[in-house]
Amino acid sequence: MAGATMRAEMGQQPAVLRELIARGAPRLGPHSGVVIVARGSSDHAAIYGRYLLELATGRPVALAAPSLFTRYGARTEASGWLVVGVSQSGATPEIVEVVERLRATGGRAVAITNDPDSPLAAASEVVLALGAGEERAVPATKTLTAQFAAFAVLAATLGPVPFTPDDLARVPDAVAAVLAQPADAWPEADELLVAARGFLFAAALESALKVREAALLNADGYSTADLLHGPIAAIHAGAPALLLDWPGPTARDVAQVRDALRERGADVRVHAAAPDLPEALAPIPAVVFGQQLAYTLALARGLDPDAPRGLSKVTKT
Amino acid sequence: MAGATMRAEMGQQPAVLRELIARGAPRLGPHSGVVIVARGSSDHAAIYGRYLLELATGRPVALAAPSLFTRYGARTEASGWLVVGVSQSGATPEIVEVVERLRATGGRAVAITNDPDSPLAAASEVVLALGAGEERAVPATKTLTAQFAAFAVLAATLGPVPFTPDDLARVPDAVAAVLAQPADAWPEADELLVAARGFLFAAALESALKVREAALLNADGYSTADLLHGPIAAIHAGAPALLLDWPGPTARDVAQVRDALRERGADVRVHAAAPDLPEALAPIPAVVFGQQLAYTLALARGLDPDAPRGLSKVTKT
Repeated sequence: MAGATMRAEMGQQPAVLRELIARGAPRLGPHSGVVIVARGSSDHAAIYGRYLLELATGRPVALAAPSLFTRYGARTEASGWLVVGVSQSGATPEIVEVVERLRATGGRAVAITNDPDSPLAAASEVVLALGAGEERAVPATKTLTAQFAAFAVLAATLGPVPFTPDDLARVPDAVAAVLAQPADAWPEADELLVAARGFLFAAALESALKVREAALLNADGYSTADLLHGPIAAIHAGAPALLLDWPGPTARDVAQVRDALRERGADVRVHAAAPDLPEALAPIPAVVFGQQLAYTLALARGLDPDAPRGLSKVTKT
Repeated sequence: MAGATMRAEMGQQPAVLRELIARGAPRLGPHSGVVIVARGSSDHAAIYGRYLLELATGRPVALAAPSLFTRYGARTEASGWLVVGVSQSGATPEIVEVVERLRATGGRAVAITNDPDSPLAAASEVVLALGAGEERAVPATKTLTAQFAAFAVLAATLGPVPFTPDDLARVPDAVAAVLAQPADAWPEADELLVAARGFLFAAALESALKVREAALLNADGYSTADLLHGPIAAIHAGAPALLLDWPGPTARDVAQVRDALRERGADVRVHAAAPDLPEALAPIPAVVFGQQLAYTLALARGLDPDAPRGLSKVTKT
């Protein structure tokens, strides 16, 4: 049945998250800064993680530019820094190389990976295993939410975070609640804009990519702050737009973009992302809402979400 | 005449760049790390700058997430760090606030701005003025290339960079050469993909935004490395794609994506970006090529590139 694999893997998310959160992470000492090394979908987890790790450590968080190391021979010195490598397979050579190089200069490496025997894990002092099992559908789902949750677990061991252990323990149920509600959608759409601000920004990027991968729509994710600085110019009447919203400090940013999009005649829907969780954890169920949408749109377009055209699983990180 | 203002401002770029490069920047001491604060188009200059500043300082470079400070009350400590604020007007409240907060913790602030009397300049110890004069067309051109060049000038004062002072002095002529050659394009396109890797990645993002702003196309910029990890799935036969290429360590990445796009039937054009300059400086003329393309596409679509639909100049940074 079309989409059966993706559906099944999505359904495993509450159990995967419950185990991952229960395992926790070892305490790590203070650091002068944090650098996250990721690529592709893992990059969206990294963008989520940078918010949490900066709040927890009180130090700026950098996202590595892998080509600096692998193409331009950079000798960035990361002595005293925490280096977080993110790769589902743990086998993406570029990610492993950057982590190895930064660790060689004195950085302390943590791996977030689904394979605790992978080269990335071997290159790291601490391994946060996703425990998500094999993923066979082309659109990554359970490994992605597990990466997001791993960042929340890691941040909580590093310093103050805007959620409690009890909040974190409620995430799997929030994900199950999203899975229980099919996302109705724009079955006629051939493009989609997804926007959010702050913590939910990473979920907007990931939701857009998921829709692109599974339903082959021209979908783009934006920060609501950037959208008003140019990209909104190309929005036309009837354009489908999804806003991820949470009733907190970013709500007025989302409302402003909602109004600006509606003025242009866009077909705007606002998704209230897990208002019962702290905003810092809402991105995890929001990503699952994006998966639901991608899955529904793919079927509505007569596509098999498990294996959309021409995408090889080999290149996934 | 439609586009006369944008055209005139584009034409001023060689002179603006010549002056900016001649002025140079003061020498600054060593730093524990670098954080860049930017938004919108300035963010693309920041992405270019992060490569150069990381090579020059040998320390990781972070791009600030402004909402962490302005929405979530982050108290990131930047003692000993270099803080680079980028804003054309120097008046974007969010950028000024983040720079002030980081400086208050001990960071040393440099402003890259077109207005040396702006709040951003007042909040900074060192000001790199763009000297670009007033910009009236909605798509920012001369202020953008000046921001890119300011990062090159700044990097050269901070440490080793992959270009010489003579190379830098040749940039204005390279820009003039691009301006002398109209970009022929896809006059029928209603979407565009622009991709590149490494130094040219920022030019791909900026070119896509310029096309979106001036010609109202659904244009997206990508890293060639990320494109293969998912977004390529949505590419269909006939889809217009522009690759920015330079004959160096990233050429094989670009060639791989070129072949993958052609296999999917995309209408791929490869732009050789300033092969006579070092790769690290090629993004500046490449951005100008993107401007030419945006301008040409706008006119071909019967639009006035000076004032595309509904974009307010007020929100520009």
